[in-house]
Amino acid sequence: MTINEAVQAVNPSVSVKMAIGIYLFSNALLSLGTERHLKFYEATVKHREILASFALTEIAHGSDARLMRTTATYDPEHKEFVIHTPDFEAAKCWVGNLGKTCTHTLLFAQLITPDGTNHGLHGFVVPIRDPNTLETYPGLIVGDMGEKIGVNGIDNGFIMFNKYRIPRENLLNRTADVTEDGIYQSSFSEPSRILGAALENLSAGRIGIMQESCQSLASAVSIAIRYAATRTQFGERDRETPLIEYPLHQWRLFSHVASAVVFRLYVQNFTKIYLNIVEKSNAGHRVDNLSEAVSEIHAIVSSCKPLLTWGALRAAQQCREACGGHGFLKRANIGDIRSNHEPTVTYEGDNSVLSQQAGNWLLRQYENSRAGAAVDSPLGTLAFLRDCAAISGRTFDCKTTSDLKNPQFILSTYKWLICWLLKYTYEKNEAELAKGLTKAQARNNSQVYRWKTLTKVYAEYLTMIFCLENIESKEKELQPVLIKFFCVYGLSTIDENLVELYQGGFSKGEEMARLVRDALMELCADVKVEVVSVVDALAPTDFVLNSVLGKSDGKLYQNLQKAFFSEPGAFARIPWWREVVPSSKL
Amino acid sequence: MTINEAVQAVNPSVSVKMAIGIYLFSNALLSLGTERHLKFYEATVKHREILASFALTEIAHGSDARLMRTTATYDPEHKEFVIHTPDFEAAKCWVGNLGKTCTHTLLFAQLITPDGTNHGLHGFVVPIRDPNTLETYPGLIVGDMGEKIGVNGIDNGFIMFNKYRIPRENLLNRTADVTEDGIYQSSFSEPSRILGAALENLSAGRIGIMQESCQSLASAVSIAIRYAATRTQFGERDRETPLIEYPLHQWRLFSHVASAVVFRLYVQNFTKIYLNIVEKSNAGHRVDNLSEAVSEIHAIVSSCKPLLTWGALRAAQQCREACGGHGFLKRANIGDIRSNHEPTVTYEGDNSVLSQQAGNWLLRQYENSRAGAAVDSPLGTLAFLRDCAAISGRTFDCKTTSDLKNPQFILSTYKWLICWLLKYTYEKNEAELAKGLTKAQARNNSQVYRWKTLTKVYAEYLTMIFCLENIESKEKELQPVLIKFFCVYGLSTIDENLVELYQGGFSKGEEMARLVRDALMELCADVKVEVVSVVDALAPTDFVLNSVLGKSDGKLYQNLQKAFFSEPGAFARIPWWREVVPSSKL
Repeated sequence: MTINEAVQAVNPSVSVKMAIGIYLFSNALLSLGTERHLKFYEATVKHREILASFALTEIAHGSDARLMRTTATYDPEHKEFVIHTPDFEAAKCWVGNLGKTCTHTLLFAQLITPDGTNHGLHGFVVPIRDPNTLETYPGLIVGDMGEKIGVNGIDNGFIMFNKYRIPRENLLNRTADVTEDGIYQSSFSEPSRILGAALENLSAGRIGIMQESCQSLASAVSIAIRYAATRTQFGERDRETPLIEYPLHQWRLFSHVASAVVFRLYVQNFTKIYLNIVEKSNAGHRVDNLSEAVSEIHAIVSSCKPLLTWGALRAAQQCREACGGHGFLKRANIGDIRSNHEPTVTYEGDNSVLSQQAGNWLLRQYENSRAGAAVDSPLGTLAFLRDCAAISGRTFDCKTTSDLKNPQFILSTYKWLICWLLKYTYEKNEAELAKGLTKAQARNNSQVYRWKTLTKVYAEYLTMIFCLENIESKEKELQPVLIKFFCVYGLSTIDENLVELYQGGFSKGEEMARLVRDALMELCADVKVEVVSVVDALAPTDFVLNSVLGKSDGKLYQNLQKAFFSEPGAFARIPWWREVVPSSKL
Repeated sequence: MTINEAVQAVNPSVSVKMAIGIYLFSNALLSLGTERHLKFYEATVKHREILASFALTEIAHGSDARLMRTTATYDPEHKEFVIHTPDFEAAKCWVGNLGKTCTHTLLFAQLITPDGTNHGLHGFVVPIRDPNTLETYPGLIVGDMGEKIGVNGIDNGFIMFNKYRIPRENLLNRTADVTEDGIYQSSFSEPSRILGAALENLSAGRIGIMQESCQSLASAVSIAIRYAATRTQFGERDRETPLIEYPLHQWRLFSHVASAVVFRLYVQNFTKIYLNIVEKSNAGHRVDNLSEAVSEIHAIVSSCKPLLTWGALRAAQQCREACGGHGFLKRANIGDIRSNHEPTVTYEGDNSVLSQQAGNWLLRQYENSRAGAAVDSPLGTLAFLRDCAAISGRTFDCKTTSDLKNPQFILSTYKWLICWLLKYTYEKNEAELAKGLTKAQARNNSQVYRWKTLTKVYAEYLTMIFCLENIESKEKELQPVLIKFFCVYGLSTIDENLVELYQGGFSKGEEMARLVRDALMELCADVKVEVVSVVDALAPTDFVLNSVLGKSDGKLYQNLQKAFFSEPGAFARIPWWREVVPSSKL
């Protein structure tokens, strides 16, 4: 994970190429395959003869994996699986590394036995190109999808299989197998659990995306803050005002710096806890409430991956605008940071779809707590639901801004908010069900302003509690400044949720909106003196940051001049000048 | 303006090249120059020998034009102006067409007479390249700024002048001149009015940007709505659900479709009024309260240009995400629409800076109305300020969602909101002044949550009143559907301003937030059946829209297949395959 994060900061396409081509594939071989697949593992990891890809999404089906239509039909006569794509809508697509470079793909297809039974999605190792020539094999239509908004170092491809045959042994058979004569044998009782195991590998991927988002976010705010500290505008000739002195500029940027701090400390702490559980369970040690912990981790990842990826995207846009026209230069690098980050909001689980899964878990815990049953939260993120009734009775009673500028106020406000949103979402959902709607329909009608807001607020709360725990483990000298940035983040997110706090009755009258916003502005003025040091701590090296506006030397205009003057061809006459001068003059 | 809007829809770089290279330059010659500049006008418009550029922004100064440092010093001996750039920070930059192609630039420089007096910024026609060879002239350092996030068909350049000489007659001398022996003669008494006249040309440019934003917005929502209508996901195999059926998807997109409708009808109506005044005054006819009308128009443009450009940007991002992974394809064209639109939020007046100018005008009118003086609003946009006291006494008293789904509720809520924000902003500003701060400091401290929100809300109100007037002039059959989209827009913007409506006491308790949001969701469900027809009316032709996801034939997957298969080289082996196969195998 650390290697991935570091490589991504330098070049996102390279990190994706490695992550899919080597790590995801080799891990999948270990977790889904058996000893008969070790040859692929060694060819990938030891001999570097295999570069892999991961083929799941189809042209017409992405989020809904159940309805994928690529088939792998077993032929007992030849002891082979016959892979087939019925039509273009079922072509696998968006497969990174497939367009031009991979030698094998990890394919997910519907496994069909000779008796015609469909056993659902299974993983297969499928050869795509001859490793010695990179020629694709006959029976395949493999192409590159062309240019994208970003990450163009990755060759995303599509593929159609025309009754393409692979050996029986290429089925990854840890959880289920097909015998030589075509009998399906599963080690799980339910096919859905097989799918779950097959897709579990995606969780680590989503944590990886959160780590990368922290990098992109840190880079973007570093550029904008350094620019704001060196760029002056308005005032008198000899004492023009640096942008960072303007309250509006502080307000536009500092909440994003704060989220860079909070998100990073959250991810650091959460990753440690996650890996601890994974390692324990892989080593065969007992983990208490393992299945409940896995559900809670899934809810955490499913709500936080959207929060972090959207947060970094929003920050990058604000940072580009805060650098004005100069931020529009490719050399400022904010544009590329943004474009390369952008796909994360719809891949590895579309954010809008993924956060609904967190909502399911949250509602289930709320129903448990209403029914007086235990809340299944071994990681403790919803432990406070036990006191939901008491929490719901609270109201806003602060008198001055200093009452608000502390984690205690922020977290207790969040607990109220989560309890209220749980109730609000639950009641809407029940009302829709009472109308006779199906579960899916009721849930769809309860998304906007309810489910969606609930999972976002839960994710904000999660980033704060894991961050706070992390701050408390740091050196004492660092804690005051980290707590200030924590409060900038917490108050700016409370600001975004004020409507619900008014609607739900936590707040009445003008005080809360005024005090939250005044407190936030005071904190912005307060952290101004520390913010440059904070981004210096967050930023990668100048080489990695690669921005003409964000170098750590603060020599903004000298760096711009050097960049302009050293661009190849900057001063050259256009080669097609003859085509544009008036023809009468030639 | 119509030609510009149409060309921009096909290719934004071409429209910028023409707008700057021909129209802006030739208009400036007519408005700032005299008969001695007609030769430049004819060379540009008739003979197409001149392609121009517009050099104002400097490396270290953009928004604050006063402090530009390029000088034009008059030399009476040679009867020439000597243009000089003291250092790289004063290099002109972001000059479209300058990097590679223009023959002349319209330069703004500090005019200095032989007595050493600086008379402020003036416009000069400055030859850059030999029109016959496109070679730059000696004495100039002219280069291209390199790649940008978008609009890369424009060669943005930078330039430094090394005591570069131009004839005295190249000064655009309609409002001021320098005699042969170096005496400055102004036809205005105040130099600031000269600058005002020189920069007035920018107003039409900002209206042009609003028209272009409407095009970009319409294109983006057309792609996303057509995709949403054809793409299905989840449900049963034979009856999967189209994305457009999901309430969350409706809520994500329909407010942007509504803003595409409202913005276009606003711009259409406002442009007509603006051009009417301009033509009348150019023809020498009397325009009542011309100077007040010019101020009000400036406030309208300064607040609406930010609203429309940010609105289109936000919409393009939402549309890309609503098209999922496929929206990330370059061929979907949403990425390019977005990237080419993106600079509008920081150019021709940075949005954050520009909207402050509207705020100045608003506050001045509020002070007038408080003092019992007349409100100077000949276009009538603030006429309601007369009734400010009565309006401020209103509170929310609707009982059902149908009370909210009409323009009357929306506009009266906005009037309350503007009155409250004027008072809230004014009082904060006065309180800061009372602390002894300067006017600039007080204003800076009153931006966030006050000034900034005020000008945004005023702009929203403006788009609605001009749109409504336009709807009322349309055929009766069209009005009901247009009013519905008007209400979707109005309720979604009220939703964004709920905090202020609670904070200011317009609303108490949970009703307003609930009813506004329920009404919006009801309207979304309601307009679902009309939204495809509406985007068919808004969208340009398929050729212009140029999106594989947004073709009007609805054949989503066939179009994708054709695009993938016909991409040159899609199926070709990479030319550098030998470099990546295992060397031992070669």
